Amino acid sequence: MASMSTHTRRSLADAPFLAAATGGTPHRRPVWFMRQAGRSLPEYRELRAGIGMLESCFDPELVCEITMQPIRRHDVDAAILFSDIVVPLKAAGIDLDIVPGVGPVVANPVRTLADIRGLPRLRPEEVGAVVGGIELLLDALGKTPLIGFAGAPFTLASYLVEGGPSKHHERTKAMMLADPAAWHELMGVLTDITIEFLRAQLNAGVDAMQLFDSWAGALPLAQYREYVLPHSERVFAELAAYGVPRIHFGVGTGELLGAMGEAGADIVGVDWRVPLTDAVRRVGPGKGLQGNLDPAVLFAGASAIDAEVRRIAHEADEAIAMGATGHIFNLGHGVLPDTDPGVITETVALIHSLAMPL
Amino acid sequence: MASMSTHTRRSLADAPFLAAATGGTPHRRPVWFMRQAGRSLPEYRELRAGIGMLESCFDPELVCEITMQPIRRHDVDAAILFSDIVVPLKAAGIDLDIVPGVGPVVANPVRTLADIRGLPRLRPEEVGAVVGGIELLLDALGKTPLIGFAGAPFTLASYLVEGGPSKHHERTKAMMLADPAAWHELMGVLTDITIEFLRAQLNAGVDAMQLFDSWAGALPLAQYREYVLPHSERVFAELAAYGVPRIHFGVGTGELLGAMGEAGADIVGVDWRVPLTDAVRRVGPGKGLQGNLDPAVLFAGASAIDAEVRRIAHEADEAIAMGATGHIFNLGHGVLPDTDPGVITETVALIHSLAMPL
Repeated sequence: MASMSTHTRRSLADAPFLAAATGGTPHRRPVWFMRQAGRSLPEYRELRAGIGMLESCFDPELVCEITMQPIRRHDVDAAILFSDIVVPLKAAGIDLDIVPGVGPVVANPVRTLADIRGLPRLRPEEVGAVVGGIELLLDALGKTPLIGFAGAPFTLASYLVEGGPSKHHERTKAMMLADPAAWHELMGVLTDITIEFLRAQLNAGVDAMQLFDSWAGALPLAQYREYVLPHSERVFAELAAYGVPRIHFGVGTGELLGAMGEAGADIVGVDWRVPLTDAVRRVGPGKGLQGNLDPAVLFAGASAIDAEVRRIAHEADEAIAMGATGHIFNLGHGVLPDTDPGVITETVALIHSLAMPL
Repeated sequence: MASMSTHTRRSLADAPFLAAATGGTPHRRPVWFMRQAGRSLPEYRELRAGIGMLESCFDPELVCEITMQPIRRHDVDAAILFSDIVVPLKAAGIDLDIVPGVGPVVANPVRTLADIRGLPRLRPEEVGAVVGGIELLLDALGKTPLIGFAGAPFTLASYLVEGGPSKHHERTKAMMLADPAAWHELMGVLTDITIEFLRAQLNAGVDAMQLFDSWAGALPLAQYREYVLPHSERVFAELAAYGVPRIHFGVGTGELLGAMGEAGADIVGVDWRVPLTDAVRRVGPGKGLQGNLDPAVLFAGASAIDAEVRRIAHEADEAIAMGATGHIFNLGHGVLPDTDPGVITETVALIHSLAMPL
């Protein structure tokens, strides 16, 4: 596959994150935290002062430095590429910005078939800055694996159709139900963009990838299966040949876990509402699980954190006994901005201190 | 029971809502919509111009008029008392306001045991304006049943602890996990306030009641059972003797439906993520179900609405065959502000046009 030959994959099979992600036996419990790079770190807030979110996502040095900050602090087992869900849309030429306190704002929301047909495609060179950041990171990270990152087509569609973050996704769902043909055409375009963005990251050498479907939990299972799953499935299928672990995550997706597993990921992320022992029943055997400490627990003090971390480790061990291929410790959603970074460091140490199951 | 003797319950046994809610056979499919009174109606926006939300909740004439507006328009089978979740807190003397575009803002968030012990109780005369509104409504409504309304203790606790609406409820969860004794003391106070508020409504003559636990879906089942369920259970238990149908609802509560049924409601509300045929399995037989049209579907045009309404009616009939005691058609969450009121009227007519199962 020509597109895969530009870089040689690093050999990090001993890394606990990759061992757990590929069904092997890690020497310690691997952990990383969604949004570990970001607002909880004072050095991040300092670095970002006066620099817009999108500006930082398209600056290779900043991408590298921000991605590295939590690695230096927390002894986590993987780095997550600092980026944003709308980065590939912006790169492709869609007029949008990330407004502090609001989120992404799209200048011309996508509402008609003409709007859909006017959407650009993503050319690899348009995410050259992200690729540049990855190249810097692969040098800086040493033995720590780097996880690539993209938003799933449904989540991108919601931003484009609503014109920004939405609580109820009513315009998105209305398009989906009222005009399925237009909807699938939109999702096709966004799936192409997502694949192109992840392909650029994989060609640059990321060691794993995570597809975030942040808003999928707003849909009932039947709609997810009909209007979303085929597209997410294509993302995973077209990137399977890279042979790197592929993670799929959304929040509030208890009803969808089985279908999200069917989309083709190797590992399914679970939020805190569903115990891992239930998650393995829903996802089925033969896949890994990631999660699922409630990010709010990091505000509850050492004793509560200790109890919750041990409970999850125990449930993870049970889930593996029930057929899960491995467990990667994580939160059930991203690090909240007010989280004390010292608590994150201590939580990582606690997780690492827990014995592996025999 | 002395507290029940002040008003004679109206005899509305023929009303489809009450027939369905009490295990009888309604002559048509009963329907009402959460937030049917409110921002979707131009006459509501006109009436509220220049009048604060709390001001309107404490004005008997406005409570009556706003509650009546959707009854005049939509031919719904029940009225829901126009109120707000924080009304009993405000009435009891807690310093808070509802800020447009934000929601409730609490002047002094409750964070310590001293804060908890300083909370006031609710005396019935403090909700005299609400009682006055109910008295006007019972005259105005004729044969349409009136549903009383209160927020559940957990949702009240989140507003008080966070100081306002919260996406992640981290301070609330932190108190719950770090100091269970303080937490249960707080919940005890809020349960007392909730019971007092509903008792005032029941004494005034409401025909049913709904306890909204808006934020319960943020909790995993184990925490819900330990920190929330005993308190919600007490609300239902202490009001059981009134003999009116008691509904319990929260959004995103798929994992909690069984426990929310155990809390003692006669009817459990279901959001759109869980088909009613799954809901009846989780709730168990012997209870009614309410729901569960996705409010976003009302934006998707007549054909999509028709398909979704028929699907839900069919699933409701199946759920009844599986042991549910009845079904009350509703949304799976509240009416969204931009909903076309004409579409609501047409949807009610469509639901009423569907044949009852034989």
